Amino acid sequence: MKIAVLNEISAADRNPDILRALEGRGHEILNLGNTAGGEAPGLLYIHTGLMAALALELGAADFVVGGCGTGQGFLNAVMQYPGVFCGHLLTPLDAFLFARINAGNCISLALNQGYGWAGEINLRLIFDQLFTSETGAGYPVARAEPQRQGRALLADISTATHRPVAEILKALPETVLRPALTFPAFRPLLTQAAARADLYPILEQFI
Amino acid sequence: MKIAVLNEISAADRNPDILRALEGRGHEILNLGNTAGGEAPGLLYIHTGLMAALALELGAADFVVGGCGTGQGFLNAVMQYPGVFCGHLLTPLDAFLFARINAGNCISLALNQGYGWAGEINLRLIFDQLFTSETGAGYPVARAEPQRQGRALLADISTATHRPVAEILKALPETVLRPALTFPAFRPLLTQAAARADLYPILEQFI
Amino acid sequence: MKIAVLNEISAADRNPDILRALEGRGHEILNLGNTAGGEAPGLLYIHTGLMAALALELGAADFVVGGCGTGQGFLNAVMQYPGVFCGHLLTPLDAFLFARINAGNCISLALNQGYGWAGEINLRLIFDQLFTSETGAGYPVARAEPQRQGRALLADISTATHRPVAEILKALPETVLRPALTFPAFRPLLTQAAARADLYPILEQFI
Amino acid sequence: MKIAVLNEISAADRNPDILRALEGRGHEILNLGNTAGGEAPGLLYIHTGLMAALALELGAADFVVGGCGTGQGFLNAVMQYPGVFCGHLLTPLDAFLFARINAGNCISLALNQGYGWAGEINLRLIFDQLFTSETGAGYPVARAEPQRQGRALLADISTATHRPVAEILKALPETVLRPALTFPAFRPLLTQAAARADLYPILEQFI
Repeated sequence: MKIAVLNEISAADRNPDILRALEGRGHEILNLGNTAGGEAPGLLYIHTGLMAALALELGAADFVVGGCGTGQGFLNAVMQYPGVFCGHLLTPLDAFLFARINAGNCISLALNQGYGWAGEINLRLIFDQLFTSETGAGYPVARAEPQRQGRALLADISTATHRPVAEILKALPETVLRPALTFPAFRPLLTQAAARADLYPILEQFI
Repeated sequence: MKIAVLNEISAADRNPDILRALEGRGHEILNLGNTAGGEAPGLLYIHTGLMAALALELGAADFVVGGCGTGQGFLNAVMQYPGVFCGHLLTPLDAFLFARINAGNCISLALNQGYGWAGEINLRLIFDQLFTSETGAGYPVARAEPQRQGRALLADISTATHRPVAEILKALPETVLRPALTFPAFRPLLTQAAARADLYPILEQFI
Repeated sequence: MKIAVLNEISAADRNPDILRALEGRGHEILNLGNTAGGEAPGLLYIHTGLMAALALELGAADFVVGGCGTGQGFLNAVMQYPGVFCGHLLTPLDAFLFARINAGNCISLALNQGYGWAGEINLRLIFDQLFTSETGAGYPVARAEPQRQGRALLADISTATHRPVAEILKALPETVLRPALTFPAFRPLLTQAAARADLYPILEQFI
Repeated sequence: MKIAVLNEISAADRNPDILRALEGRGHEILNLGNTAGGEAPGLLYIHTGLMAALALELGAADFVVGGCGTGQGFLNAVMQYPGVFCGHLLTPLDAFLFARINAGNCISLALNQGYGWAGEINLRLIFDQLFTSETGAGYPVARAEPQRQGRALLADISTATHRPVAEILKALPETVLRPALTFPAFRPLLTQAAARADLYPILEQFI
């Protein structure tokens, strides 16, 4: 699986912890956001939210690990876009249930609030439960089918409620678009996005 | 403030706990969803998500208290719609920070997972921190202005990424629309929605 | 390892969850306390605390899994006795750290507060981290030696501060002793205790 | 009320947070342990446990706020002594229930694990619930009487299982006694302790 990691600046010091906790699982990791606290330019969750949604839309990533200080900001930012299903995970149990019931493609972590000593261990235990062959298997198992139907309906709703990505990019303010799309680590995805005929006219200016 | 409470069927037994924990705060409470576990018809988070978003869109509610078993389902459902900013709150500290930083108009509670004995006390302590005059005041206070800007940008994004409500309602599947819109406790809001010229043609069939 | 499970009556309905979560680990389980909510006689944490301490003192158990509604009552009860080192564990991370740093012989679980749906999964994830070959290995590993010294000092302190068990049993009120010692599932341990010359004179009356 | 604050060295950087969170409640605060991370000498939980127990025994403090990295170490250290009833509190709900049900005289806080950004707010919310006129009032209220009986029995047990303090001090290793008793901020309590006829012969050497 291709997992994109997207840290905004306020919790960028956790980025190495996230990378380490993802190691050894056989996944390809794309580290697309801030990687250290002092870094410039600094991304806001406003930006990492868009970057995460685009990474999923383009198929560049199968899953996004994002977050912010409390996890609420990134969650709200990324959920503005179509095709994103995001959990707010604090414990291994949250991850166990989210994988089985919601089987989303994104998580938002609290990376400052409650993130103390041994926080990197908690990340590892969360990922142990999150990345499982039981994804979508339901919990309890007897509820697998209605839970699957709920996910399918949610996907339909997401299409019904959102504009197409090309329209979205056209409508977003420059203060959201530019810092996100021109962030150095994100550049390969910008190129990939611009290769799409529907997105080229909007993205051309950022290449 | 007008607060809508929206329980889906899986956690409907918590509805009285929520109502009690909201008491004595001077708010008008609209109890729009399921109110007991055995009730028929039973709503799914798919439905309460739409109902919550409409309650906010119509100005029938200023704030929505929703949730589901883990809180993740309602969160993902309600966040599909424009103008919804939703926190996933488990502790009073979550509420303290969400009120000051995110100042959203919706929360999603975990009403089965981790909801044990004294869960109703935890709800009360959460609401004590959530409904505060410090909403939007920032945390830490020195970060109030960038946090305010983040919220303003998020609102712009929400408008940019979503279709107008009339189009959304037209595009949603009947399995989402009908159970939500025709739920008995929701009927006054359906009437109110149908009074809007742009929504009448779609909603007419449900009245 | 021999693991004693000790439930008081208020959380006895969790007993099957605990047993299931302990399964498949190759341990011998002694289920010494209440096993269902309606059961008579009902034990208080006052009793399960003594029973747990005796199980450890006699070597009948290497480890005790106890608890109560919040975990605080059993914790305080069992910690009254010599040779007991008890963690209050709520999450897998708690268990990970307790095993490595404190390497105690007892835990107290919150079995009503915060114990909701999927609580039995949380128990399993806790035990996954608790029963590890890394017990006492330190966290972080570089702190293994001072942490070992801390545990050794704590054991010395426990001996220094407590009366010998025979004296303790002589001094305990009948309301503590009788319900604990004569509890049916505990009877084999009472017999074993009474076989000790120093304890026989006190325990004789309960056999 | 007189509240003693006792930080060991590993979490001494949280000491100012604790003091601030205790402010404005009308209590007299005795700050008896480490106050900053770099400080020498550094106390271990082994030492702060003894200091806390002595502060309570002497009546110098009515309540002790202690802790360590995870809260488990201080908890186990302080619970070795007679007359100490200690809660392990992580959330405001823990504090709400501990005050009403257990009504102990000591708490152990997790000051590194899970102690991140806004940790000082969580402390304040915990203390808001902990220091209440409802101490010992029971939760639920209908269970007040059996809960009171449980506390009374626990106090009897504590006396039955522990040696008298003079014997304990005589039996404790020098490595426990000296760093604790001669810690500068603790000196007034050492003087007070030494004024007790039963303790003078043991404490004389440390004055």
